[in-house]
Amino acid sequence: MKRIDFLSLVNNFKVVFLDSYGVLKNHEGLIDGVPQTIDYLRNQGIIIKILTNDASRSRQQQADLFKSLGLNGLTSSQIITSGTLARHFLEDKKIKGKIAYLGTENAAEYILHIDRDSIPIGEIDLENCDDISAFVFLDDEGFDWNVDINKVINLLRMKNIPVVVANSDKMYPVSPRDVAVGTGGIAKLVENILNRKFIHFGKPDSQMFMYAYNQLLSEGDYTKNEILMVGDTLHTDILGGNKFGLHTVLVLTGNTRESAVETLVSATGIIPDYICKSIVH
Amino acid sequence: MKRIDFLSLVNNFKVVFLDSYGVLKNHEGLIDGVPQTIDYLRNQGIIIKILTNDASRSRQQQADLFKSLGLNGLTSSQIITSGTLARHFLEDKKIKGKIAYLGTENAAEYILHIDRDSIPIGEIDLENCDDISAFVFLDDEGFDWNVDINKVINLLRMKNIPVVVANSDKMYPVSPRDVAVGTGGIAKLVENILNRKFIHFGKPDSQMFMYAYNQLLSEGDYTKNEILMVGDTLHTDILGGNKFGLHTVLVLTGNTRESAVETLVSATGIIPDYICKSIVH
Amino acid sequence: MKRIDFLSLVNNFKVVFLDSYGVLKNHEGLIDGVPQTIDYLRNQGIIIKILTNDASRSRQQQADLFKSLGLNGLTSSQIITSGTLARHFLEDKKIKGKIAYLGTENAAEYILHIDRDSIPIGEIDLENCDDISAFVFLDDEGFDWNVDINKVINLLRMKNIPVVVANSDKMYPVSPRDVAVGTGGIAKLVENILNRKFIHFGKPDSQMFMYAYNQLLSEGDYTKNEILMVGDTLHTDILGGNKFGLHTVLVLTGNTRESAVETLVSATGIIPDYICKSIVH
Amino acid sequence: MKRIDFLSLVNNFKVVFLDSYGVLKNHEGLIDGVPQTIDYLRNQGIIIKILTNDASRSRQQQADLFKSLGLNGLTSSQIITSGTLARHFLEDKKIKGKIAYLGTENAAEYILHIDRDSIPIGEIDLENCDDISAFVFLDDEGFDWNVDINKVINLLRMKNIPVVVANSDKMYPVSPRDVAVGTGGIAKLVENILNRKFIHFGKPDSQMFMYAYNQLLSEGDYTKNEILMVGDTLHTDILGGNKFGLHTVLVLTGNTRESAVETLVSATGIIPDYICKSIVH
Repeated sequence: MKRIDFLSLVNNFKVVFLDSYGVLKNHEGLIDGVPQTIDYLRNQGIIIKILTNDASRSRQQQADLFKSLGLNGLTSSQIITSGTLARHFLEDKKIKGKIAYLGTENAAEYILHIDRDSIPIGEIDLENCDDISAFVFLDDEGFDWNVDINKVINLLRMKNIPVVVANSDKMYPVSPRDVAVGTGGIAKLVENILNRKFIHFGKPDSQMFMYAYNQLLSEGDYTKNEILMVGDTLHTDILGGNKFGLHTVLVLTGNTRESAVETLVSATGIIPDYICKSIVH
Repeated sequence: MKRIDFLSLVNNFKVVFLDSYGVLKNHEGLIDGVPQTIDYLRNQGIIIKILTNDASRSRQQQADLFKSLGLNGLTSSQIITSGTLARHFLEDKKIKGKIAYLGTENAAEYILHIDRDSIPIGEIDLENCDDISAFVFLDDEGFDWNVDINKVINLLRMKNIPVVVANSDKMYPVSPRDVAVGTGGIAKLVENILNRKFIHFGKPDSQMFMYAYNQLLSEGDYTKNEILMVGDTLHTDILGGNKFGLHTVLVLTGNTRESAVETLVSATGIIPDYICKSIVH
Repeated sequence: MKRIDFLSLVNNFKVVFLDSYGVLKNHEGLIDGVPQTIDYLRNQGIIIKILTNDASRSRQQQADLFKSLGLNGLTSSQIITSGTLARHFLEDKKIKGKIAYLGTENAAEYILHIDRDSIPIGEIDLENCDDISAFVFLDDEGFDWNVDINKVINLLRMKNIPVVVANSDKMYPVSPRDVAVGTGGIAKLVENILNRKFIHFGKPDSQMFMYAYNQLLSEGDYTKNEILMVGDTLHTDILGGNKFGLHTVLVLTGNTRESAVETLVSATGIIPDYICKSIVH
Repeated sequence: MKRIDFLSLVNNFKVVFLDSYGVLKNHEGLIDGVPQTIDYLRNQGIIIKILTNDASRSRQQQADLFKSLGLNGLTSSQIITSGTLARHFLEDKKIKGKIAYLGTENAAEYILHIDRDSIPIGEIDLENCDDISAFVFLDDEGFDWNVDINKVINLLRMKNIPVVVANSDKMYPVSPRDVAVGTGGIAKLVENILNRKFIHFGKPDSQMFMYAYNQLLSEGDYTKNEILMVGDTLHTDILGGNKFGLHTVLVLTGNTRESAVETLVSATGIIPDYICKSIVH
């Protein structure tokens, strides 16, 4: 666990995997200096991929959002989201029938983006739901918490169908002070009530790393040793990166504060290879 | 684990502790034949106490509700609720300052029923909450889930204050088919997000049994051996009764279906001393 | 959470409940100055009770051990152990048949101390164990871990009987540097393998506090407000004392180090009313 | 969840991934008819890979063992073990210094099989262990449970190093009646005592499926849709296979009994695509 400047560290690698929130941006927009770092990486010929737990937007929408914030040149194929993996899962399983979901219509359109029927939880008639064959937790918006969480529970009590959590983050920051319950937190509540385990997508699970790595192998010859995983959260970015066999660096521009690093690393046993203040210097 | 008729079993005991929902009543009202059983117990001189995980009503409101359903003669002192215990806790701790809560105004009035300030989560100003010194999860109604659950989380991130869960039931039945997330389920979500443990009241914890038993000792001389705990739920009524050293009987008029008894007992290791179809025969 | 001297704090109370290890003694013997504090409490007329998670010795053996260390005048009735509660539970349940156990013969004799059959796990014949009607985790010594833990698991797979954990501590200190897995840790392993929940005795559960409090009420008139719970561990002493409605003080002579207090209190949400360096000043 | 004969099902696939214990063999040796099924698969040109949670033997030793039982022609490259993945992890991370382990010398030699120093827990001097840079749970044999489990805990309290669990199975069958605590169960005990999370290898984690799939892609062009995962355990084989996007079949020759299938599937929410009595018919 060495303290080091990011720009001197990164030159030892051919590829960087970057978390998005807390590394590239925060609630106010891009973190100062990030566009310069991205330019530097490009100039050095270092390949960039972004791995983000998110299922509210399509990869193209993510790229467009970065552009609108002032970070140009990211293509949709560079951005790997947990929602992408959930969609591939549903496609691979060739599920027949309707897919029910909790979340926004936009998420359903772009994440499930399916030449098939999908139906938001609010429109389901529990007396008449034989045709529903899978359920997806997509987003923490787009429904009425007072009513629809109970409806999900009662649907899943009746129907033993595959349930997918397209973003396993329990919470996310909404301001320097406040957080909000995320898709993964709602899913956890439902799992807890039903005493069941759903299929979760997103870091720290290996699936997202594997997807990014396989994509990388289709572009050239790389070993895991040549990849640096950059994140602000021990339990997702660093745990996942470590387990996948990547070198990992914890940055302090997001979830993990400088003053808490030592305590947290020691309490969790999740040890990044390096610690950097930010990706800017 | 003997199968037996309740009316022949109960004559071996001087006291019965009864769960309410699933034993005395269900979503439709009183279970058929329950008033006759209660009369029979009274005629036999068997003492009756009701132990219920509930914090939405005062003990007197509970007694009035039984009366309105057709079960007469229950006094408020016979009904022990998890809300009562939560209130005693807050009184014993002599907490100074305001108590914030999630739940209805009625619950706050009757459960906290305090000659002190209390404030619903919806009215709290997070910029200005220095005077709040405890938090209580009272009920699953009386607030907006879309907004107020996140507000509770952010309040408790800022303030490290005692947090009390006045009803630890994760869910409760609302119809033969459907359940709803209960106060304990919401509290669990918040505990999970914050990675903290709150102070929970209600079965299976020993507190409620102890309270009922101490009340009993003030009325006469009884040993635990003379008490029969009656419930429909293994994890609350039977686990709690077993641990407190009471004889326990599982009835099949509520949460536990006949067809699932053997499997559930064997899977959980929670073993009632007796099984009865209902308290009616 | 006030920092205060113990001797000035304790004068506000009529009763103190003291944890043993980490408060009165450590691996080297009595903590310096403890006999003087105990004398002071006696001179002030403050009632002393010791609440300890232990099932390896009888209450009399505990009192004798304190005497041999130099702390005189403690009677067995002043010492409440988790083992005592486990024994009362087994007596109350009037279990017929043999009780099997994991632990030393001494623990079986003094804790179960039963005019009944008991049998150590090592002597059980799994082909022929119909007469066994309960199982107790007594101690982490007195058996061969290589063989007997698996034997417990296979016994409990065959027989769905009440299982009692007479000391729920997962680990205990054996030197300033080292710990050892305790009875509660072994029980947790077995629960985890079998996916079942056993009946645990010991702090933080309310049973031990209730037992001490009821004993106290038989000696005079006391309210919970007049009792101070003293302990070195947030998760057992302080959590249990808080929940039972006692005033609580964390001392720093055992499990909780000065430098970690703030972090631990904030991370766990378990808040002692007071913090004292030790009970000596 | 269709009931179907394995031999008619398997013809729809180009590849089968098979669990070992409970599918190919049991405590008595090969399951009757298994060699004939394997021959049939070969004749049909179906590719066979074996995915097993095991870290006690090398892949070659596994192949030799199958041969000695009467199953010929399996090569080491066809057998993917959790131990293999743990070794690759340690190689990828380029850990410097000694690797400490719990398990047999054979496992250390063949799994770690390292041109580097390794040291069994029994030989470590806790006063002098600065050079140890990683720890591996390899096997449930080869050490003294009475002493060495505590030693692991105390080592890991002192040193915050990467910890790898080379076989995450909590238990394994040793006879039709009995089970034994496995490597994963011991690791879980230590995690529970230390309140930390280690890096686990083995099903249901995606790593092993990914490894097998990547190996497959190096041999030819296959899609996940062309692969059938066969296992006897819902929580490892089926959960892992489902999540990786494979078609899954549960066989009833191992951990899951015919009479319990419906209950278990419904309780866990882990749903195999197919159920077959065995792989023999």
